[in-house]
Amino acid sequence: MKCTRCRDRAEIALRAHNASFCRTCFVFWFERRVLRTIEAEEMFSRQERVLVAVSGGKDSLALWKILADAGYRTVGYHLALGIGNYSEKSLAQCQAFAQTAQLPLEVEALADVDLAVPDMIQATRRPACAACGTAKRHYFDKAALRYDCQVLATGHNLDDEAARLLGNVLHWQMDHLVRQKPVSEARHPKFVRKVKPLYLASELETAAYAFFSKIPYVVQECPNARGATQILHKRLLDQLEHESPGSKTAFVGEFLRRAQPLLPEAIATQSETCCTNCGMPSIGQLCSFCAMTSEIARKRAAKRIQETNPE
Amino acid sequence: MKCTRCRDRAEIALRAHNASFCRTCFVFWFERRVLRTIEAEEMFSRQERVLVAVSGGKDSLALWKILADAGYRTVGYHLALGIGNYSEKSLAQCQAFAQTAQLPLEVEALADVDLAVPDMIQATRRPACAACGTAKRHYFDKAALRYDCQVLATGHNLDDEAARLLGNVLHWQMDHLVRQKPVSEARHPKFVRKVKPLYLASELETAAYAFFSKIPYVVQECPNARGATQILHKRLLDQLEHESPGSKTAFVGEFLRRAQPLLPEAIATQSETCCTNCGMPSIGQLCSFCAMTSEIARKRAAKRIQETNPE
Repeated sequence: MKCTRCRDRAEIALRAHNASFCRTCFVFWFERRVLRTIEAEEMFSRQERVLVAVSGGKDSLALWKILADAGYRTVGYHLALGIGNYSEKSLAQCQAFAQTAQLPLEVEALADVDLAVPDMIQATRRPACAACGTAKRHYFDKAALRYDCQVLATGHNLDDEAARLLGNVLHWQMDHLVRQKPVSEARHPKFVRKVKPLYLASELETAAYAFFSKIPYVVQECPNARGATQILHKRLLDQLEHESPGSKTAFVGEFLRRAQPLLPEAIATQSETCCTNCGMPSIGQLCSFCAMTSEIARKRAAKRIQETNPE
Repeated sequence: MKCTRCRDRAEIALRAHNASFCRTCFVFWFERRVLRTIEAEEMFSRQERVLVAVSGGKDSLALWKILADAGYRTVGYHLALGIGNYSEKSLAQCQAFAQTAQLPLEVEALADVDLAVPDMIQATRRPACAACGTAKRHYFDKAALRYDCQVLATGHNLDDEAARLLGNVLHWQMDHLVRQKPVSEARHPKFVRKVKPLYLASELETAAYAFFSKIPYVVQECPNARGATQILHKRLLDQLEHESPGSKTAFVGEFLRRAQPLLPEAIATQSETCCTNCGMPSIGQLCSFCAMTSEIARKRAAKRIQETNPE
C-alpha cells in the first residue's frame, strides 16, 4: 500500500476517500482539510478570538493544536464535569496539552457550583447526556462572552454529526434539523457564532491525527455515554460505512447541500426574551439551564425536608 | 400474556403498539387498521376498480384478501419475472390463491417478451432490483389501463417503506423523498393512482396475518435481493426497532406528517412528454423502460455480431 501523495509506504488507508497516506502526508492532508473548511465555510477570521471548548479527548485537542499552529487567536476552555476519575484525567490532559503548547487554558468546574454531573443526574430525571449538554451549552456561551471571544469552536467530528443527523431524522425533529449546521450564526447578542471545523473528519481520522501528532488524550469514553442512543446510532452508521465507504460523508454533506436549504428557517425556535435568573437568552421565563438548576434546587430542598422529618 | 382486546391467551406481542393479541383479535385488529388506512387516506372508493399487484408473497396476497373480503372491486395482476424456481412458485401461489378465493387473476410473463429478469441483468449493467423495478412499474401502469382500473394497490409494508425512506435519506434524494407517499395521485392521464394500504403494517405483522388467515405464500426471498442495499437498510432498522420499539412507525409516520409537507412539490421530476416507442409518459424521448429495452436490444445485437465474427 503506497501513499497516494508521495508514493512512500502508506500507514493509513481511507476507504471513504479512496486514498492511502504515509504519516507525514496524512497529517498534511488532515490539517489542510480543516483549514480549508474554516475558510470555505467562513467560520472565523484571523482577527477574531476563538474559544475552543476542550474536553481532553482527541477531537478537541487536535482542533486546538491545528488552530494554534495556523496562527488563529485561541483560548482553551475546559468545563470540569465532576464525573469522577474520567473528569480528573480529562482536566489533566487539557492542562498538560496547554502547558506543552504554551496556550492559555481557562477552567471552570461544575462541582464548584454544586452541579457535578452525577449529582445533576441524581436530582433530575433527565438522561445523563441531556443534562450535561444543557450545562455545557450554558457555560460555553457565558465563557465566550467573558473571555471576549466572537466564536466558539467545538471538536464535533463527522461521526458525531452523522449520528446526530440520524437521530434527528429518525424522529424528524424539524427544529433540530434546521439548526444542525457546521456554522451557526449567533441568534442573539449574548450568543456567539458556533463552529465545527472537524465536521468532515471521521473519528478514525482524528484519532490517527492525534496519534501521529503525538497529542496525549483521554481515550476512555465518558462512562455516562454507555447505552446512550447516540452510541446505537453510531454503531448503525459504522455498519453502513463498512458496507459502503463514504456513507457518512454523503449523509451529512448532501443533507447540508440539498435538504437543509429547502427547510424554512422559521421552524427554528427563537430566543424571544432573556432568562430572569441569569440574563442569558431564553424562550420562556427561565433559560433551559436555569429551569434545570431550579428544578434541582427544589428537589434537593424537598429531600432535605424529608430527611429531617422521616415521618 | 393476555390479549389486550379480549383478555384471552395472547399469541402475538406487538412491542411497537404496546399490545398483545389472541389469533382472532389480531386478525380483526390488522384488517381494521388496513381498512381504516384506506378510508383515512382516501386511497380508493368502493366504486373504483383496483388492480392489486400480487407477487405471491405474504404482503400482496394478504392485501388482496382483505380488499376482496371487504367488498372492494379488485383484479389481481401477476408479472412473472422468469427468475427460475422462485418465479414458478410465485405464480403457482397466486393462481392457487385466486382459485380458492374465486378472484380474477391476470398474468403476464416477461419471458414472453424475451425480458426475463436474469437475461435483463446479464444484458444491462444495472443492479437486479433496479432493472426489475423499472420493468414492474412499466407493466403495472400498462396493466391498470388495460384492465380499466383507476387504482394500483401494492403490498409494500412498513419495513419496505422505512428501508426505502432510509435509503432516500442517506443520499438525500429529494425528488424521491417528495414522491414517497402512501397515496400517489396520477401525474398523467396514462398513469393511475398508486396506493400502499399496508404501509403501517410491519413485516412481522403481515407474516402473522397470513399465517393466522391460512394464506399459503412464497416464503423464499427473491434470490436477486441478496446483498441488495435495501436488505442492509432493513437490518439496520431492525436493530433500531429492537432497541426502541415503534422506531419504524415514527420514522415513516413523522416523515409524512412533519417533513414531507415542507418539501416543494416542484422537486419531483415530471413526465413532460410521451415515449416515442410505447406511448407511455416519459421525461425524455424514451421512457425508462424503453430506454432499458433498447439498450438490451443494442447489446444483444452487438453480441450476436461478435459471435458470428469471432475475429
